[in-house]
Amino acid sequence: MSGSSIGTLFKLTTFGESHGSSMGGVIEGFPAGITVDLDLVQQELNKRRPGQSELVSPRNEKDQVQFLSGLFEGKSTGTPIGFTILNEDHESKDYTHIKETYRPSHADFTYEKKYGLRDYRGGGRSSARETVCRVVAGALAKQALDKIGIRFSTYVLQIGDIRLDSQNFFETKEIEGSMVRCPVKDTSNRMEALVTQIKKEGDTIGGVVQCIIENVPVGLGEPVFDKLHAALGKGMLSINAVKGFELGSGFLSASMKGSEHNDIFDSGDTTRTNYSGGIQGGISNGMPIVFRVGFKPVATIMKDQESVDNNGNKVKLEGKGRHDPCVVPRAVPIVESMASIILLDYYLRNKSIHL
Amino acid sequence: MSGSSIGTLFKLTTFGESHGSSMGGVIEGFPAGITVDLDLVQQELNKRRPGQSELVSPRNEKDQVQFLSGLFEGKSTGTPIGFTILNEDHESKDYTHIKETYRPSHADFTYEKKYGLRDYRGGGRSSARETVCRVVAGALAKQALDKIGIRFSTYVLQIGDIRLDSQNFFETKEIEGSMVRCPVKDTSNRMEALVTQIKKEGDTIGGVVQCIIENVPVGLGEPVFDKLHAALGKGMLSINAVKGFELGSGFLSASMKGSEHNDIFDSGDTTRTNYSGGIQGGISNGMPIVFRVGFKPVATIMKDQESVDNNGNKVKLEGKGRHDPCVVPRAVPIVESMASIILLDYYLRNKSIHL
Amino acid sequence: MSGSSIGTLFKLTTFGESHGSSMGGVIEGFPAGITVDLDLVQQELNKRRPGQSELVSPRNEKDQVQFLSGLFEGKSTGTPIGFTILNEDHESKDYTHIKETYRPSHADFTYEKKYGLRDYRGGGRSSARETVCRVVAGALAKQALDKIGIRFSTYVLQIGDIRLDSQNFFETKEIEGSMVRCPVKDTSNRMEALVTQIKKEGDTIGGVVQCIIENVPVGLGEPVFDKLHAALGKGMLSINAVKGFELGSGFLSASMKGSEHNDIFDSGDTTRTNYSGGIQGGISNGMPIVFRVGFKPVATIMKDQESVDNNGNKVKLEGKGRHDPCVVPRAVPIVESMASIILLDYYLRNKSIHL
Amino acid sequence: MSGSSIGTLFKLTTFGESHGSSMGGVIEGFPAGITVDLDLVQQELNKRRPGQSELVSPRNEKDQVQFLSGLFEGKSTGTPIGFTILNEDHESKDYTHIKETYRPSHADFTYEKKYGLRDYRGGGRSSARETVCRVVAGALAKQALDKIGIRFSTYVLQIGDIRLDSQNFFETKEIEGSMVRCPVKDTSNRMEALVTQIKKEGDTIGGVVQCIIENVPVGLGEPVFDKLHAALGKGMLSINAVKGFELGSGFLSASMKGSEHNDIFDSGDTTRTNYSGGIQGGISNGMPIVFRVGFKPVATIMKDQESVDNNGNKVKLEGKGRHDPCVVPRAVPIVESMASIILLDYYLRNKSIHL
Repeated sequence: MSGSSIGTLFKLTTFGESHGSSMGGVIEGFPAGITVDLDLVQQELNKRRPGQSELVSPRNEKDQVQFLSGLFEGKSTGTPIGFTILNEDHESKDYTHIKETYRPSHADFTYEKKYGLRDYRGGGRSSARETVCRVVAGALAKQALDKIGIRFSTYVLQIGDIRLDSQNFFETKEIEGSMVRCPVKDTSNRMEALVTQIKKEGDTIGGVVQCIIENVPVGLGEPVFDKLHAALGKGMLSINAVKGFELGSGFLSASMKGSEHNDIFDSGDTTRTNYSGGIQGGISNGMPIVFRVGFKPVATIMKDQESVDNNGNKVKLEGKGRHDPCVVPRAVPIVESMASIILLDYYLRNKSIHL
Repeated sequence: MSGSSIGTLFKLTTFGESHGSSMGGVIEGFPAGITVDLDLVQQELNKRRPGQSELVSPRNEKDQVQFLSGLFEGKSTGTPIGFTILNEDHESKDYTHIKETYRPSHADFTYEKKYGLRDYRGGGRSSARETVCRVVAGALAKQALDKIGIRFSTYVLQIGDIRLDSQNFFETKEIEGSMVRCPVKDTSNRMEALVTQIKKEGDTIGGVVQCIIENVPVGLGEPVFDKLHAALGKGMLSINAVKGFELGSGFLSASMKGSEHNDIFDSGDTTRTNYSGGIQGGISNGMPIVFRVGFKPVATIMKDQESVDNNGNKVKLEGKGRHDPCVVPRAVPIVESMASIILLDYYLRNKSIHL
Repeated sequence: MSGSSIGTLFKLTTFGESHGSSMGGVIEGFPAGITVDLDLVQQELNKRRPGQSELVSPRNEKDQVQFLSGLFEGKSTGTPIGFTILNEDHESKDYTHIKETYRPSHADFTYEKKYGLRDYRGGGRSSARETVCRVVAGALAKQALDKIGIRFSTYVLQIGDIRLDSQNFFETKEIEGSMVRCPVKDTSNRMEALVTQIKKEGDTIGGVVQCIIENVPVGLGEPVFDKLHAALGKGMLSINAVKGFELGSGFLSASMKGSEHNDIFDSGDTTRTNYSGGIQGGISNGMPIVFRVGFKPVATIMKDQESVDNNGNKVKLEGKGRHDPCVVPRAVPIVESMASIILLDYYLRNKSIHL
Repeated sequence: MSGSSIGTLFKLTTFGESHGSSMGGVIEGFPAGITVDLDLVQQELNKRRPGQSELVSPRNEKDQVQFLSGLFEGKSTGTPIGFTILNEDHESKDYTHIKETYRPSHADFTYEKKYGLRDYRGGGRSSARETVCRVVAGALAKQALDKIGIRFSTYVLQIGDIRLDSQNFFETKEIEGSMVRCPVKDTSNRMEALVTQIKKEGDTIGGVVQCIIENVPVGLGEPVFDKLHAALGKGMLSINAVKGFELGSGFLSASMKGSEHNDIFDSGDTTRTNYSGGIQGGISNGMPIVFRVGFKPVATIMKDQESVDNNGNKVKLEGKGRHDPCVVPRAVPIVESMASIILLDYYLRNKSIHL
């Protein structure tokens, strides 16, 4: 129970450190008999891949997934799907200078205190490189969900102070047309300019990702502790650098009155407004699921910082190495993958409600 | 796996509907040999109890917990603690008018669609009355955590547009001195006036609860999917009416730069700022844990509303019955209970890190 | 994770000590919309009840179950079913003499060493009285399984050296016609005589229960670690006094050759022999499931025994109190209940194999 | 939840089919900071390896494990340990003749019915080749247990009708000195002769493995459903070809009286006899844990058999390919590995009993 599994019926378990030989995982409970398109999996991985544009980390990884089991003659067999992804561009020499130093707002300090030792080559297990495994599982889950009509629109809503005001369902083409994955041209341009500027400064900047899911069947979600949005929240908060999660009206609802916030039924099947974000009492109501995920600026900056070593001595930490000025565009496929994993799990769980 | 359990080593399983004979649950994994103060449990229940002031629902419940097992001669035995709490003030006649009607932004529609039937007397299983069980478990967990020095300060930060700007650790006395559980006199007064006004209107209003936890040992939290704040987020989002969760800098971090957001170490043990909210890489770093929970206005209002019945016909829903104009003050002990449950679970999990 | 839960989708969590106020539990994941016959639940409880005949413990318990949630207008709602059963006949005075003494082959010693304290009034949590909760859950599960045609025949196969040589599916009437629940008249008579004799001696005797389950759908059971018979084995071995479990040919298969043990297909659906006991590769094959459970003689005897106290001093333990000369007949409904719980869980799990 | 995980705090998840590219798994919860001897892991794998003697399957596999994560500078880091083992000797051509045929007493029929398709190249996921992953995890667990003094003696007790009458703790050297892993020379010789004869006949034969574990701390095991022997039983029954499990006196206890079966305390720490098999009330009592595992003869024989194809037509199945006349000697390291996995898990679980 080291915390590397998510899901109940559909479950992902991952392993791997940023500078080990490879990342990988086991996907359990993927339904049997589904024709899997491996190119689609690679496409999702490419969206997360470093080096995909000038605005992201130049770490050079092909991120090619190798499936080791669970697929036979192009179909899922219902048995566990094992997979690995090589770490090709370790460059572990880069990291020797931090062997005894705790980088600010990284997990160096907490891992070393918790375990008594840590793989000091980069982030080790705490590295966001781990999310590559989530995208593999998410890309498979999305293919299953696609067969029952569930569709995703996940995009960058905010970078720094630049924010798009929309709950629209944008098509993948619109999102992928933007280097920062913001589907509205003008906002996208301003975001790009901001990230370029931040990169020049050797600094980083935070942002917000919005995810909208259409055609979710009514009834997904379990009462009390396993409410659908509670699971989505946990999944999103487990992504590196995430500091907040909100569903539908979110924190804005704190300022609202019940008479304006209540979603009045149009008919039994739809509501006029969707402040609920597609979930009532923890269970999907058939309206689009809408949630937002807030990301802090990543901690690795190209500026010198004060810090301490593992003896408590003050040290100066030089800003060098590779660096993502804004991780939010690359986070889009991760958010969508986590949502896919959770939705497929809850879809399968819901099948046991009746005999 | 109906979703009524939370936790791994320390685990709560609950049962009960708002208008059944009683609520109750089973608490597993409470450590053995702890002297339990049952009066403290009742005190926490009283903070959540309806009818405690003019500003909350007049439903009349003593909420007296009866422990059925797991305690012997004043101490925990390490075996499961079963408990029940009677539903004394059912008034189920009140609810017959909604037997075939779906109340807006309640779970009537989703439960009926999911299960094919529902206990239409009030919210059934979706009722916030279920949280009484969480407070029982939380009050026990808090007693265990108290023995290792962990302390909580949980209070109302915002109601409507009135917001306190603070991350202070307020003492229980200060919080309980306010009818709305906001520890700053002036803000509290304005909040009370707002809730009184909202109550007169027959309306409801949302708010935000902040929780600060001090003296958390370094090292609580598991990598990847079971990050401490991911578990806290899930726990909070599972509380009725919650729409958002944020840790430390939260959504504000989306607008920040890394150079300002990074928490520089003072020494190896403390940081100058606490944007991380006491958790780095999903693991507690010894700084205070700080998080906020956003609540929507409760859906039951004393105003007439349009709705539909289970045949899709339009109906008018009369505003009558009992009503909480603002649930946030009563949510304070629930938030603290969920945090206690999760922290105790993670404290116990952390004991297995070394042989 | 105190070990008081079993199951994944259909799950039972129990609480209670032999001399606390009551036993009870929570049943999660019982499918929604099933009409439940509460009299059938009580009938199963009566089969397990002490005081039902001259051959069992005279402890006087009505064992009337009170359901607290999850049932509405005679049907299951899909939400957790909480229940309690009063301990009416505590007689805790009987037990003061063992407060500081460890009874041989009881769990007094291990519980006290593990937890640092124990509820010394009788067996506490280790008492077989806990199994009353399993019968409640099992009786509900059996009603659900009955709707898909699954039928049970559970009976006493052996007491002491008297053994019935049969794998027949006997009807409930035949089994319940025997005071020792052995469906063959002659064998039953000899068993009764043996138990009567053992009772006179103040001694106890072991035995074997056989369970045969017909009309199990093909496909129940999960690969590798969650094989159906592995789950059945765990469930049976968790029953007090059980020392062994075997499926189909069981330990006898150790002496057999593959050419005689292989179950040759008659058609794709049935096999000529059933050495496999209805399960191949951990998955039901549609043939009757056949397993046997071995019980040791219960440890409480009416004879004086040597023992030690909790200071390691030798003491004489007097044989007095209430006593079951042979627990095997009362174990029949417990074995059947555990099998029902596990089968329903696996039936529900199997629903997620396909999208 | 496809059933490919075992354990709670210490957990193994496996993947892989007999004729896929590789087997592998993820080990979670292995304690941090333990110096791991990889040669010892390979030694255990070699005990399970086919081709190790004339009496076992000639399938040629080096079974060299490759660790991908969780180990750093020779020590465990506390993070998941991913690993793979290549399938080098597939020879999948051998299996085309069974593509549409169900082999008797194999899982071909049940897998195909359950999933709607199966990897027909050999046993697929149902193959005993999967147990190679258990040995990897078990070999690591055993190294951790060794540090707290726990020692194993696992050997062949019975093959066919030849049975050793002993509960002795034999040393590894004595066991490994026998080609059939029976530590008593004379019995071993007779077993070898029997297996040689069975091999000539193209047949197979069953057997029994006994496992004795010394120096187990008092207190391992959880009440009610998670009794230590219930977990051991599940683990053993999950091994391919296992039909029975018994603890201590086992099925023999059915014929015994309480007055002879009760283990009288010598002092508070030891008992004169050990019918309990080292476990009372599901919790280890410090005496040696003793259990036996019954294996059926493996289903693959070198004789022609009648069978059916997937259209229900009768076919003749030729006896050809590779074949293990008696799998029991190779099962010894598997039994010991499963016991190690479970004991380490329960050792870690027991650490949360006290605050």
